[in-house]
This record gives sequence, C-alpha cells and structure tokens, in this order.
Amino acid sequence: MKKSELIFDGRFGIEKENLRVNYFGELSLEKHPEVFGSRNQYITTDFSESQIEMITPVCNTVDEAYDFLENINNIVMLHLENELLWPGSNPPILPDEDVIPLAVYDDIEKEQYRKYLALKYGKKRAILSGIHFNFSFSDELLRILYEESDKIKTYEDFKDQLYLKVTKYFMKNRWLFIYLFGASPVFHESYMKQCVELSTEKKNGGCTSKGMQSLRNSVCGYRNSDFFFLDYRSYYKYKQSVSRLVDEEKIKQDSELYTAIRIKPLNNHIEYLEFRFLDINPLFATGINQDDLKLIHMFAIYFAQLEDFDYDEEQQVTAGINQDISAQSLPDASLIANSETTENIYSLGLALLNNLNSYIELETINKYSDDRVIQKSIERLKTIEKTYSSILKSSIDEKDYISFHLSQAKYFLEQARDYSFALAGFADMELSTQLLIQSAIKTGLTIDVLDREQNFIRLVNPQDHHAEYIKEATKTSLDKYSQVLVMENKLITKLVLAEHGINVPTGFSIAEKKTAIKLFKQGDLPKELVVKPNTTNFGKGITIFPYEYSEKELIEALDFAFSEDNMVLLERFQSGKEYRILIIGDEVAAVIHRRAANVVGDGMHTIEHLVERKNESVLRGKGYRTPLEYLQLGKSEIDFLAYQQLTIDSRPAKGQRIYLRENSNISTGGDSIDFTDNIHASYKDAALQAAKALDVQICGVDILIEDISKPATPNNYSIIEVNFNPAIHIHCYPYRGTKRNIGDKVIKLLFDNKEKF
Amino acid sequence: MKKSELIFDGRFGIEKENLRVNYFGELSLEKHPEVFGSRNQYITTDFSESQIEMITPVCNTVDEAYDFLENINNIVMLHLENELLWPGSNPPILPDEDVIPLAVYDDIEKEQYRKYLALKYGKKRAILSGIHFNFSFSDELLRILYEESDKIKTYEDFKDQLYLKVTKYFMKNRWLFIYLFGASPVFHESYMKQCVELSTEKKNGGCTSKGMQSLRNSVCGYRNSDFFFLDYRSYYKYKQSVSRLVDEEKIKQDSELYTAIRIKPLNNHIEYLEFRFLDINPLFATGINQDDLKLIHMFAIYFAQLEDFDYDEEQQVTAGINQDISAQSLPDASLIANSETTENIYSLGLALLNNLNSYIELETINKYSDDRVIQKSIERLKTIEKTYSSILKSSIDEKDYISFHLSQAKYFLEQARDYSFALAGFADMELSTQLLIQSAIKTGLTIDVLDREQNFIRLVNPQDHHAEYIKEATKTSLDKYSQVLVMENKLITKLVLAEHGINVPTGFSIAEKKTAIKLFKQGDLPKELVVKPNTTNFGKGITIFPYEYSEKELIEALDFAFSEDNMVLLERFQSGKEYRILIIGDEVAAVIHRRAANVVGDGMHTIEHLVERKNESVLRGKGYRTPLEYLQLGKSEIDFLAYQQLTIDSRPAKGQRIYLRENSNISTGGDSIDFTDNIHASYKDAALQAAKALDVQICGVDILIEDISKPATPNNYSIIEVNFNPAIHIHCYPYRGTKRNIGDKVIKLLFDNKEKF
Repeated sequence: MKKSELIFDGRFGIEKENLRVNYFGELSLEKHPEVFGSRNQYITTDFSESQIEMITPVCNTVDEAYDFLENINNIVMLHLENELLWPGSNPPILPDEDVIPLAVYDDIEKEQYRKYLALKYGKKRAILSGIHFNFSFSDELLRILYEESDKIKTYEDFKDQLYLKVTKYFMKNRWLFIYLFGASPVFHESYMKQCVELSTEKKNGGCTSKGMQSLRNSVCGYRNSDFFFLDYRSYYKYKQSVSRLVDEEKIKQDSELYTAIRIKPLNNHIEYLEFRFLDINPLFATGINQDDLKLIHMFAIYFAQLEDFDYDEEQQVTAGINQDISAQSLPDASLIANSETTENIYSLGLALLNNLNSYIELETINKYSDDRVIQKSIERLKTIEKTYSSILKSSIDEKDYISFHLSQAKYFLEQARDYSFALAGFADMELSTQLLIQSAIKTGLTIDVLDREQNFIRLVNPQDHHAEYIKEATKTSLDKYSQVLVMENKLITKLVLAEHGINVPTGFSIAEKKTAIKLFKQGDLPKELVVKPNTTNFGKGITIFPYEYSEKELIEALDFAFSEDNMVLLERFQSGKEYRILIIGDEVAAVIHRRAANVVGDGMHTIEHLVERKNESVLRGKGYRTPLEYLQLGKSEIDFLAYQQLTIDSRPAKGQRIYLRENSNISTGGDSIDFTDNIHASYKDAALQAAKALDVQICGVDILIEDISKPATPNNYSIIEVNFNPAIHIHCYPYRGTKRNIGDKVIKLLFDNKEKF
Repeated sequence: MKKSELIFDGRFGIEKENLRVNYFGELSLEKHPEVFGSRNQYITTDFSESQIEMITPVCNTVDEAYDFLENINNIVMLHLENELLWPGSNPPILPDEDVIPLAVYDDIEKEQYRKYLALKYGKKRAILSGIHFNFSFSDELLRILYEESDKIKTYEDFKDQLYLKVTKYFMKNRWLFIYLFGASPVFHESYMKQCVELSTEKKNGGCTSKGMQSLRNSVCGYRNSDFFFLDYRSYYKYKQSVSRLVDEEKIKQDSELYTAIRIKPLNNHIEYLEFRFLDINPLFATGINQDDLKLIHMFAIYFAQLEDFDYDEEQQVTAGINQDISAQSLPDASLIANSETTENIYSLGLALLNNLNSYIELETINKYSDDRVIQKSIERLKTIEKTYSSILKSSIDEKDYISFHLSQAKYFLEQARDYSFALAGFADMELSTQLLIQSAIKTGLTIDVLDREQNFIRLVNPQDHHAEYIKEATKTSLDKYSQVLVMENKLITKLVLAEHGINVPTGFSIAEKKTAIKLFKQGDLPKELVVKPNTTNFGKGITIFPYEYSEKELIEALDFAFSEDNMVLLERFQSGKEYRILIIGDEVAAVIHRRAANVVGDGMHTIEHLVERKNESVLRGKGYRTPLEYLQLGKSEIDFLAYQQLTIDSRPAKGQRIYLRENSNISTGGDSIDFTDNIHASYKDAALQAAKALDVQICGVDILIEDISKPATPNNYSIIEVNFNPAIHIHCYPYRGTKRNIGDKVIKLLFDNKEKF
C-alpha cells in the first residue's frame, strides 16, 4: 500500500475516569459495583473507590474507540444502583478529605501509593477526572517512513525519534488543545479551599474566574507542583531525565510525572503516546466529542512530518506558562510566541490550525473528510460563545453547578435506557450478538469480531486465555454438531421427543404432493391440519388450517411447503397458544408468547395510520437489529385483512385488536410478551426434558399450550419445534413484560465451568 | 389405511447358523473371531464354537431383512482369517465327536445345556445348520382384523388364535416347503455313521439317496426322536402340552422342542412365528433365495384368512409322515391327503400353490408382484430338474461334495471382496455412511436410519443404550457446533491457525470485485494467485493461477468465486502437491494425495476410449455411492484438453498421463492414492496441531507440501483448508495404496469413551 493510504492508520484507545455520585450530587461513598468484578479490563477503579475508570481496548480507528467508550459508559450508567455518573472533570459535592475513600486493592503497594498521593496532592485534587487518549501510528506506515529515511539509525531508534518529535510539538503547543477542549470552567465550593479563594466569581455553590477554560489544566488542577525539565533529545536521555527526578525524590515513580503527553514504552522503545489534557466534557454523554480526538490525531500526523527541533529548557518553561495562560484566559490573552515576541491565543491558534488544514488538504485521502473537524475548531477559536467553557458557564448560570450536572447525568442515563439494546459500533450486527457483546463488556471479556456479516465473534477470558467462538449469539461450543443437525430435522426431532414420552404433533411426512392429495380424497387427513416443510426455520413455508380446508387450499399449502424442502410434514393442528421457551443450560431462561402483528384501534385512525404509529417505536426496526421488527402492509397482510373483511383504510373501534398476519413470528412484526413467571411449571419441565432428550444446552422450544395455568397432560400441549439458534433479543426486550438478561446467562454458561476469572 | 393395503405389512427377521471351515473343507477348530466381540447382537456363536450365528434385526420387509443378512454374511466372510463359511446345511469334513468344540459361554447354564444336547443328539447332528425366518403381522392389520371379527375374545386372545391357525396350516402342509426348499440332498461320509449306512448312493465322499431333498428335515436331521403331541386349541393349552413334555423329561426346556414352526411369545401371548424348516442353500451366497421367504410370507397371509380347523393328534402324526416322505422323495411319491386318500406331492402341492395364487390375485396390492414367486415354485414342483436338490446333486456330481462347497464358498468370498464397499439395502446412501454402518454391524451396534436422503443415522449400544446421531458419517457429537462454524469460514480458520503458528496461505479477503482489480492494476497482487470463495466446499468457485494471469482471467476467476459467496479470498499460490490428512480424534487416520482426473495412454486408443475403459471399474460411480467417481468429458475437461492442445480424439503415447482437469477432487473423477505411511511425520504433526487449534475431533486437513520426504519448515507447506465433513470412503478404498478402515476408528471414538459393551 502507498504511504498516502496509510497516514491515517493507527491504533487508538481511550481511558476515562468518572466519579460516581448519589442523586443529590454528592460523591458516592459506596463500593465499586460488584457486577463488574474485580479484574474487569474495561471497567475498574482509579484513585478513589468512587472513581470508575473506563478503558477501551486498542482499536483501529478513533470512531471504533469512541464507540467502545460509549458502550462501556452506557453499561456502567445502566448498572449503577441509585447512583449517577458525574458528567464532568471537576468534582461534585465533596465530603472532607478524610472521608473521600481511596480505591481498595488486593495489592498493598497500589494502596500505599494512593495514600502517598493523597497526602502529597490532597484527595480532592487527586479525584479530578479526565480523559486519556492513546495513539500510535500503524507499523506499516512507520516502516514506510523508515524506508524513506536515511536509515542511519535502527528502525526502533527512528520510531523513538519520530514519537519524541510529535511529543515535543504537542508539548510546545498544548495550550491550544487546553484552550479548545477545556471543559471544566466551574467547580464546586466544596473543592480545595485555596482554589475557591482564588475564584473571582461565585454563585449558587459554583466557583469560576473570568476566562477559565479548564480548572483541571490550571494551577488548581492535578499536576506536579514544580517545573521539571525533561531531556527530549533521545529516548535514552528522556528516560535518564525521568530517573533523575525519581532519584532526587521529586516523584516516587514514572507515573507520578503528570505531563500533558505521556510517553508509553514497550521493550525500551516508545510504543504509543498518551494525551492527558482532555477534560470530561459535560455536554457529551461519553464526556468527549469524538471530533476532538480526530483533531489530535490529525495534528499527530501533521507534526510527524515537520522538521525536528530542540525542545530545550527555555521552551519547556515557556510552554508551561502558555498552558497556564490558555487554561484560564480569553482568546485575546497574550502567549509567548518565541523568546522575543508574544501573540494572542486567537492568532497563534489560527495559524496552527490553518497550517494543519493546508497540510491535510494536500493528502489525497482524508479520513476525516468534509473539513468539519478543523473548521469547527477554527470557529471555536474565533467565537468565544462557541467554546465548551462558554456554553458550560452559561448553562450552569441558568441553573446551578450541581443541578446542571445532575440534569445532564439523568438525561444521559435516560438516553442510555431508551436505547439500551443498542451497542455503538455494532449496529450492523444482529441484536442478539450485540446483547451478548454487552454482557461480555460488563464481564470484562476480550471481544474479537471475526466476521461481522456472519455475526461471528470470539470472546476470550483475559486471565486464562480461554476462547469461545460464537456465531449469531447462540451457536456455541456448548452444543454438539450432531444434535444441532437433529434439531434442524423436524422429523428426527419429533421421533426423539416422542421416544422420550414428550407430546409432539401427530402426523407424518410425505415426499410427493400427490400422496397428500390422495389421502385428502380418502378422508385420511386430519380435519385441522398444519402443512410444513421438514427443514426450514422462521415459519417459512408453513400453512395452518385450524378449520376445514378445500383441496385447492391444500394444494396451495403443499406447493408453499415443497418450495422450501422436498420433504413435507402433515400434522394434526393442536389448539392453544404458542409459546417460546428458551433453554440455557439446564434452566428455563425465559418464556414468551408471540402475538401476530397487530394494531389496536382508537375509533379514529385507519389501520394504515395505526401501523405507522406503532412502527415509530425505537424498539422496532428491520433485520434483527432491534428488539422488534416493523409491521408491514404487504400482500400477506392485505390478504389477511381482506379475509377479515377489512382494508388498510378501515378504522377499528377503540380497543379493538386487528391482526395483520396469521403467523406470530417476531420477524413479521409480531409482539413478544414475557410469560416466564406466568406459566405452569410443568410446561417448563417438558421443555427442559425436550432439551435433555435432544442433548442440547441452548435451544428455543416452541410449544402449543391450551391453558398455561393448568398442568401439562398428554393431550393439552404439543412441542412443535425445537430451534437450535434461538434469538435472545426477543426475551431481553419484550414488547410487554419483564426484560430477561439472556446475554449474561449465555456468558455464564460458556465461561463459568472454565477456570474462574 | 385399508386392510388391502396392510396385508403385506409385517415384521421380518432372519437367523442363520453357519459353520466355519478351513481351506481343506474341514470344520474349523479355531475360536470364534474376536473382531466381532462376545456380545454382538448380529454375529454370535450357536451350538458349536465353530458355528457362527447371524441374526438380522427386526425389519419391515422381507427384502430389508434379506439385505441385512447379506451384509452380515459379507462382513463375516471378509473378516474370517484363513477360513471360509461353509455354504450348506450339511456339515463339512468332521472330526470325531469329541473333537467338535462346543460354543464357549460365560454362562455356565448355557454351556451345560449344550453338553446335554451333545450327549442326547450327538454333536454331528447338532451342528447341522439352517435358516430360521421370523414373521409377525403388523399390529395395524391385526387390529383391523380384530375389529372385523365378532370380538367375543379379547384382542390378545384373538391374535393368539390367528397365529395358532396359521401355525397349524403350516405344520400340516410343511411337507410342501421342505420339498420346495430342500437344499441338503448330499452329505459327507464323516457325518453320523448310521446315516451314511442308510444312504444308497455314495461317491467321492458324498452320500445321498434317491429323491433326497433335505437331510436336515429327514430322520437323519436335527429333530426330536419321538413324536410329541401338541395341543393347538388355545395358546394356553399349547403351553400346557409343552410343559407336560418338560415335566415328563422328554425335553429339558421349551427350546428343545424342534418343531418346524416355533411359536414365540411375549407377555404370555404369541408375538411372532419362527419358520425353522429352511436349509442353507449352497446356490446362494446368503444361503437363501429371498423368493422362498416371500412364498412363506404369502402363505402366512393366505392361511390367516382360511377357516380354522382342529389339528388333532391324527393329523399331527400324518403331517410328520408327510414331512419324512417329502424330505426324501420324488414328486410322484404319495402323501396322505386325509385319513382316507393319498395323493402325490406334485398334485397336492400344485393345488396349494394354485389356491394361494388365486387368493393373492384377488388382492388389489401385491407387494411381490409379477407372479414370479409363486410361478417359480410351481415350475420347481413340475420340473424335477429345477428343484434345488437336483441342481445341487448334479453340481456335486461334476466335482465332489467338498470341492463343490469350497468352490461355492470361495466364489461368494470373491464376490464379497469385489464389492466389499457396498452395503445391501443401503446403496442409496453415501458410501461413507455405508462404511460406517458396516463397522456398526461388525461391532454389534443397533442401526436406525433416521433420514436416508440426509444420510442421517443413529447408532445405539444395545448394552447401555448410549445413542449417537451421525449425519454423513463424520458429522457427529464429537465436534462442537461453534468449531464446525469456524471451519466453515475459511477466513476465521486461517486466522486461528496463523495464531497458533501453523502455515497458512498469505492473502486477504475482499468483498468487492473492484478491490481486486484495483490491486491488480497497482501490481499489488501476488504473481501466482489462488482466488476462492470464503465459505464453500468441494472446490467450487476456486481458480488457481500457478502462472502469470491477465486482468480478463482475474475477472473471470472473481466472477466464479463471487457466484459462491459474497466474500472472496485472494491468496498467494503455494507450490507443491496437495494432500488430504484425515484426523480422527488425536490421530492421523489416513493421508491421501488426490490426482486430478486422468488417463494413461496406450499408444492406440483415444482419450474418449481410455476414459470409458477407466470408468468400467466397479469402484467408480456417481454421487458418492462408490469409492471413486466417473471421469467426465464435459466442458471443463474439453477446455482443459484444448489448453494442452488435445481433444477427446487424441491418442496419447504409451505410458503418457493425460490430465482431464486442473482440480484434483475425487468428485470430478480424481484418483486417490494412499500416502499414510509415506509422508514425513512433521506434516502429520502440523495437521494434528491444526485440529487441536481448531478444537475439533474429526476433520480433513488439506495441505500443500513441496516435498513429503523432507521435514516441515515455515515455508515449505501450507494448510489451505480444514474440512469438517471429510469423506471417509476415499481412504477406505483408495485408487492405489493401502485401504484404511476409517469406519472402525469413528465408531471407536464415538463409543469407546462411553461405557464398554
């Protein structure tokens, strides 16, 4: 591949610290939620027990990392009990220093380090939360750049030098990012006393000063109190300069060096860069605008091709001063442009952004096309009202500091609840798979999407590396191939179930249409009949005659069934309602009744209108990406309405339920209604016995039951099908009734019998 | 269903006793072959250790039972070491009485009973072998007959009475069957002295008398020495009369009652009838003409609708006399027709057969249509030369008793060897499945064919009832569903193998044709390329460019691949030969190389002729029913010949091998050559590692190897595919090289970890 096609390639990751609060906006003093376990790679604690840390895996694009953060964020919000995620860098209502809990670890060294930090910086400062953005160039790009270089250095040294150059440019110009991304202009009066006292504007418990962009990146933020010189001339020298700080006991360990950009090594060479200047932005549910990450990425690409320079002590001091200015100033504030001149934030920033823009425009392929990212930043620089801090200040002004943050937190939670079935970045996959991935994130399993189109994923326990391959959420290692094939064949399934004394529809199979017609003419077919193909799914090719039928109707039904398979089953129709009993392992995980696509009249509107209205629900969509599917008004529905002497223009009476289809499949717009706790236990037993007879762990048992309140007898129910690939989303998000978390059950079954993690 | 459609329905089973002999025609003194185990339900021992008993399962038709007997018979013949099955009722060269071994049992009572019989009847008599035919009417028919009856009795008593009536008719007329089916006219001079002395014709060690049809059914046969009266008026009375014989110590137990038809009860009522008068017919490999069984079946149907009668003592005595006459007389011999008249065999037999014929012709549905069965019997009655005994006598006359039987035995064995891959009654199923069923029979597993078209069977261990469901021979419970899906997806398979350090073709996948064309134009595609769809089998959609290729050729290849899947793999071509390594459990079960369809010239004939000649092999056929498939001369072949500047009319030089196809699949006429013992162990290890990485028990690893004699390196081989449903027949019957018994290995893996049987 060519360089121009690779410059946007890289590896990206996001980490976010986030405080938990109660509904009064007070820092939570509760333990870290147990549901996430103690060794979750995505969800853990940071400095404080009340501070959740979210960590995305390494991703191939900014969007992918952002989406993953959104998913973690949603999962965390949805699993907090009577708590909210505090949507900002600056803390909520804080108790006294000594009451703020430190994070609890098994590791005594970790605990002691936190005690040391608490003492040195103060807990209130230490719980200031932020976002870290991790980035590295793709190896392929680095290799090409190395090939183009003079090759005097080794590849590894070349790479170090490149990352050092990028770091230096970022360090030198970090004031711009702090200014542009600053989103912590106001803080609560319960924050550190000296900072409250420094504030010039105080109102309703909120403290700020004119021009304040980012408390967190200011002198009141979490940073080293002294200026530390670092030697950027080579990675070796850099390490030496850091070691010196440790030797001189200025810092205890590398991680106490709170630089705006942290250099992350692997095997003694720089592996990636961590950008640490990002505030949690209360305007965004995730705490970050993904365009801001893209801007950083573009600058990294841009800086990488600039001339190298010597980032000496003077320049480092200057950059520090510039940071302090930009963190709490208006755009007309003067920055030190070089040792002799000053220039204001606006003009210096504009120059940088324009240079970036000119460079990026030269590149043939711009992944972040349509100029939106750079242009929006330029606008923010030009118009003070468009900065995050201005928007935040005026929003806080309308309410007060605590109310504003709480209302944002609640709004984000509401949104997460409404779309809790959806998983960002996985919307092209089936909902059942998305739900399983949600459970995997919550549990801390590593997720590899192996084939998106096939909904084929791999989950790995990061502790013992045990891997599970899963297709379409329920095709797993738990089931034996032969038993899946048994279930795929309705005739064999019936045989096995009948052998085990389980009720199945009486009937027989035919290979030729004429056999059925002959039997019909002889009067040897059941009066109420079901005609279905031997081996298909989703109700395709099935006709039900719950009433007397004509030879013509039978022939049509046969043609329909034979179009799906060359073996067709003729079964006596069992009266009753159909339920789907989902078996996971040796338990009934859920029971639903599927009601055929329908609308309920209001005495005013047409069926067409009622259908449109019902389809407006966010729960409905197309192709198994949502909990329910759109109702349709195609030929089947219109025919079925006509059979009831109705058209799409009919206006049903108030409360009158009109069915649009005979079959109750969710895929054709049916409603799912949870019955897990409302069905006689004997039917659950029958379904479990069926699963046991078929020797399967995961299956969906379709059962016709005359009366769910009465116990099963040899005549009042019939298992009509056992599905080896049952959808799980219909149980997780039923149209009515209790939601059942099936994803967790599948994960538990897959991983619990293995080594613990 | 109507009665007329049911009268031929029933349940059928065959048992055959069969002596083992050495190649001199002497009774074998070796142990029962271990390969069949000690508790095989199909293959066991009878009176003597040298006497194999073959037992078919209960079948739904005569043909089915017959086919099963043929299969058992072939399997037994093929697994005897340096021995033959003696193809007749009368014994081979016998040693002295005391040397003839009794069957060895764990059960002391069984052994003692045999010792008692040996003493009472003599071992030489006791090893006379025969065929027993078991029959019962279908329950459905019996129910209808009961409904039509006066219903004075219970259904069970009605059934008993019906079977008793049929038994009586058969007992009364048994002389006819003994005459028609008699096939033991000559016996060896080493048989019992008194019988040798009774013989009037002796020649080359063979003894006979004029008109001898069946030694076994004569006074020299294995039967009770006294006349025993049995009370047939009711089943209760019948049992009483048998008990009386035991009480009077005339017989030791029921089974010592050697009646021509034995009544078989279940729960104190008659369940089925056992016809015991059938000799082993040396003219047939199985020892029986299946038409003879059909004649018995038709008589059973016919007798069932005749008037009942009282089979009193006088009639029983008469029937015994008639049996003795028919067993050793010509057709003009007089039988006692009733208490006053006599009539000869010919006219009395003809009357019976004509009556049967008239009755059967009245029935609308005759399962044994075209009259062959009855007409052939009539002819045999009319023309003495057509009786089995006449044919046998003259055949023995041409050689001698021992030589004739040995040559028949060897001929039957040769036939079994030539078609050893075929399984009677299962020819419509895939050969791989047939081979597995062969192994199941040999092992004594119960076989249920669940879906013939799908090659779906169930094997059950009759001891512990453990059941295994198997589709297409290698889709079993041994493999996890998820891992089959992994193998089905080439991209994921490659990923997993590469992660485990196993060589796979370098390459990538594309979703759009234009991507490939763009890469081609940029020169970014390998110079030697393989284009293949992501998820298909049997080599469909694959194009190989082992040489430079044009854009046009590439586009054709892409179209071909995209016609099979919407994801296509582009891989670097790995040079070398392709081998299939079959993994069963944790061992390499076989390795073959598949050579593309080819013919070798003789300097005379055209390619077309050579193809025809190669296709004459019994090993070639169509649709996986034979070890190899027909070579074809379709478009692909003609195009490939044209590419070599050849046509089907070209005449290749002597020894010149002409390939008809590029791909080496067996399905397109390729040759399979066994390499199991000729390949460097490191490739077997690589294949085993691949199976382990994929966590599968049964798979076919397709591997390209540069030089099978040199050890594997990171560059000299590549695993190109792992198949989850490998055919086993190609290894069992390779075109060249050692046959590998894969069926046994699959059975062992499926059942050996379970409870022993």
